[in-house]
Amino acid sequence: MTLLKELDTLIDSLEHVIVDHAVNLIRFPTTSKNEAGAQQYVKEVMTGLGCTTVDLWEPDINLLKSHEAFVSSRSDFKGSPNVVGTWKGTGGGKSLIINSHIDIVPEGSVDEWQYSPFGGDVDKGVIYGRGASDMKASKAAVFGAIQALSQAGVQLKGDLIVQSVIEEETGSAGSLACALKGYKADAAIVPEPTGFNICPAQQGSSWFRIDIRGKSAHAGQRYLGVSAIDKAIVVIDALHEFETFLNQTYTSSLYTGVPIPFSLNIGTIRGGDWASTVPEKVTIEGRLGVPPGLSLKKAWQLLEDRVQQKVSQDPWLARNRPVIEWFGAWWGPAEIDPDHPIVTSVRTACENTLSFSPDIKGTPWGTDARILTEFADTPALVFGPGTSAHCPDEFIPIKDLVMFAKILAAVIVDWCGN
Amino acid sequence: MTLLKELDTLIDSLEHVIVDHAVNLIRFPTTSKNEAGAQQYVKEVMTGLGCTTVDLWEPDINLLKSHEAFVSSRSDFKGSPNVVGTWKGTGGGKSLIINSHIDIVPEGSVDEWQYSPFGGDVDKGVIYGRGASDMKASKAAVFGAIQALSQAGVQLKGDLIVQSVIEEETGSAGSLACALKGYKADAAIVPEPTGFNICPAQQGSSWFRIDIRGKSAHAGQRYLGVSAIDKAIVVIDALHEFETFLNQTYTSSLYTGVPIPFSLNIGTIRGGDWASTVPEKVTIEGRLGVPPGLSLKKAWQLLEDRVQQKVSQDPWLARNRPVIEWFGAWWGPAEIDPDHPIVTSVRTACENTLSFSPDIKGTPWGTDARILTEFADTPALVFGPGTSAHCPDEFIPIKDLVMFAKILAAVIVDWCGN
Repeated sequence: MTLLKELDTLIDSLEHVIVDHAVNLIRFPTTSKNEAGAQQYVKEVMTGLGCTTVDLWEPDINLLKSHEAFVSSRSDFKGSPNVVGTWKGTGGGKSLIINSHIDIVPEGSVDEWQYSPFGGDVDKGVIYGRGASDMKASKAAVFGAIQALSQAGVQLKGDLIVQSVIEEETGSAGSLACALKGYKADAAIVPEPTGFNICPAQQGSSWFRIDIRGKSAHAGQRYLGVSAIDKAIVVIDALHEFETFLNQTYTSSLYTGVPIPFSLNIGTIRGGDWASTVPEKVTIEGRLGVPPGLSLKKAWQLLEDRVQQKVSQDPWLARNRPVIEWFGAWWGPAEIDPDHPIVTSVRTACENTLSFSPDIKGTPWGTDARILTEFADTPALVFGPGTSAHCPDEFIPIKDLVMFAKILAAVIVDWCGN
Repeated sequence: MTLLKELDTLIDSLEHVIVDHAVNLIRFPTTSKNEAGAQQYVKEVMTGLGCTTVDLWEPDINLLKSHEAFVSSRSDFKGSPNVVGTWKGTGGGKSLIINSHIDIVPEGSVDEWQYSPFGGDVDKGVIYGRGASDMKASKAAVFGAIQALSQAGVQLKGDLIVQSVIEEETGSAGSLACALKGYKADAAIVPEPTGFNICPAQQGSSWFRIDIRGKSAHAGQRYLGVSAIDKAIVVIDALHEFETFLNQTYTSSLYTGVPIPFSLNIGTIRGGDWASTVPEKVTIEGRLGVPPGLSLKKAWQLLEDRVQQKVSQDPWLARNRPVIEWFGAWWGPAEIDPDHPIVTSVRTACENTLSFSPDIKGTPWGTDARILTEFADTPALVFGPGTSAHCPDEFIPIKDLVMFAKILAAVIVDWCGN
């Protein structure tokens, strides 16, 4: 039996271990500031898997603040540790980072879930819960792959570094802390739920807020006022037009076939105080997708210019300009060469394991891969099982998880050498 | 000197008394449930002005509840009395009700006021404050007119009934309580701020709430979701079209020259939870103006039918229907004959007092005149000084107030006889 076949067989026998890890991790409700318990669990698992060193620390926000990629609304990271386990190689091989975040977005309205967000339910071969695909189950698969390698007696030549990071969902401060601590490798894999698409490129994203003014009046004489809701619709039209412009102007073969490669989402709208009063203010918030190759700052400028130019045609808005603000978190775009050897390694492993040939694509969202590629000198690709994220009844099929562990084990052996 | 000239001279000399009453009333912040102090003040003033009887009572909500015109979100009217003062006539004349509400809408954002909402500031001949024009100052002018009549020794033949009512801004429960207690007269004047327009007709109004559903998705793949904001815009378009239809279909010569006689205002919009998520629900609230001659129920049905018909052209909305609800308070439309003798009496008094000829119009809003006309067997018209209402720096010019007192005194003498 070849090594890869042996690893496949071992991983099949470890399915229950992978599922247990996934369920255990889902049961920690690791929203921002609540990661400590889960990270302690991760540390224990890594230690049990014989890592050479395990590094658990709360990032010092003062070391991060001056970095151009730093973004966070927190004042410190107390109670929110990163964990990095290193399996030291015997020498002469290439090193590999596998980076996955431990934090999750909030569960949202529980009424919309059929399963408990933090129950870790397993039903007909599928694991449910917040973080199931984004991205606790893939972390569990990493552990399964390493356990299989260990049981097969594999001695890696290059270092294998597994990072479990905080704050991905709020701007990548955890991965930035790893980079600034000096963690780097010859390549990295970030197992976000790409549905087994291999993604050497990721788009950036940035949140905007736009305040639109009107003029209040009694509803019965609404012609004496100016409706901020009607004016917000003019701005929304301008944003839709900007999205079209952006996608016509910045194209990438990695996004071929995607209906809207770089989408602009208007996520919230709030305006007016009273049914009987003409609304004098509306605020909209949204998210702009930023194509690889376009800087965030350039993207901001493009949007602002196009929107202001468009609304100039409206006499009221020309005199009462919408105020555009870029707020909260942002993730820059990043890309590596689609022919980079790590891409080839993952593709080869996929072709040996999956019944289909994965696509080489760009991601629809920002990820921590950008931090690794741009600030840790570590070319990173995004590749993982699952497709659901940030939604009720988030889920991951167990068979995808097992396939992912097999692919990972093959990539680790191929990349690090044995 | 004729009696009218004498009354004019007396009222000029009473300007400071009228201003003091207005300022004192503005200093009571009489939002719903906070009317008691001001009503006690009104009772004292009426008593001082020699009324035959003064009736102060807290309406019993149980006596009102079964009435078709009853609308209130309150469970009782404890601490919220009505006051009615009656000046009994010597007999043989026509009786007159003057009805003004003591309640006000909230002051809104104080930042938008230059003057204090409850300070009662007087600046360059103008009184400022919440309730200045809607409608405490006109109540003060009523007192000034009565004081002048008293000082002139006028003995009225018909009864003069002055009602100071609660809850006009929230659905007319105070005036309904007066009607059900048996107060009626040969005519009534409701001195809302019509800017000296004489209004034998008033439009109705009713609040609606519409829930629009979308389908959530991650912003980066917004094409997998359906934006409830985009769908709300379809509904808003349909509402604008309905307003056009309504104003083309239901016309009235009393609204000639008004840009939008029966306006539909979309007052609030709320939707979405997160910049990075396709919004799955939007709620809009608004106010529909209802033409005189159209019942509220018919108006509701017309709006619902037109909106649902319009949105049927949108495949998503055809399957996911907007839910329309009529909530909160409503005011029915009402009208009296534009040639009714009370209209003639007011017009004649205006022509003798004002430097301009007032228009005969319909109101842009609902008022308590409807309760008097329809449920107290008392034909009521709406007529008063001032034009601002429900806005920051609500105000009333003192000269308008003095003119209004003069007109009122003349109408009282003409209508009730002496």
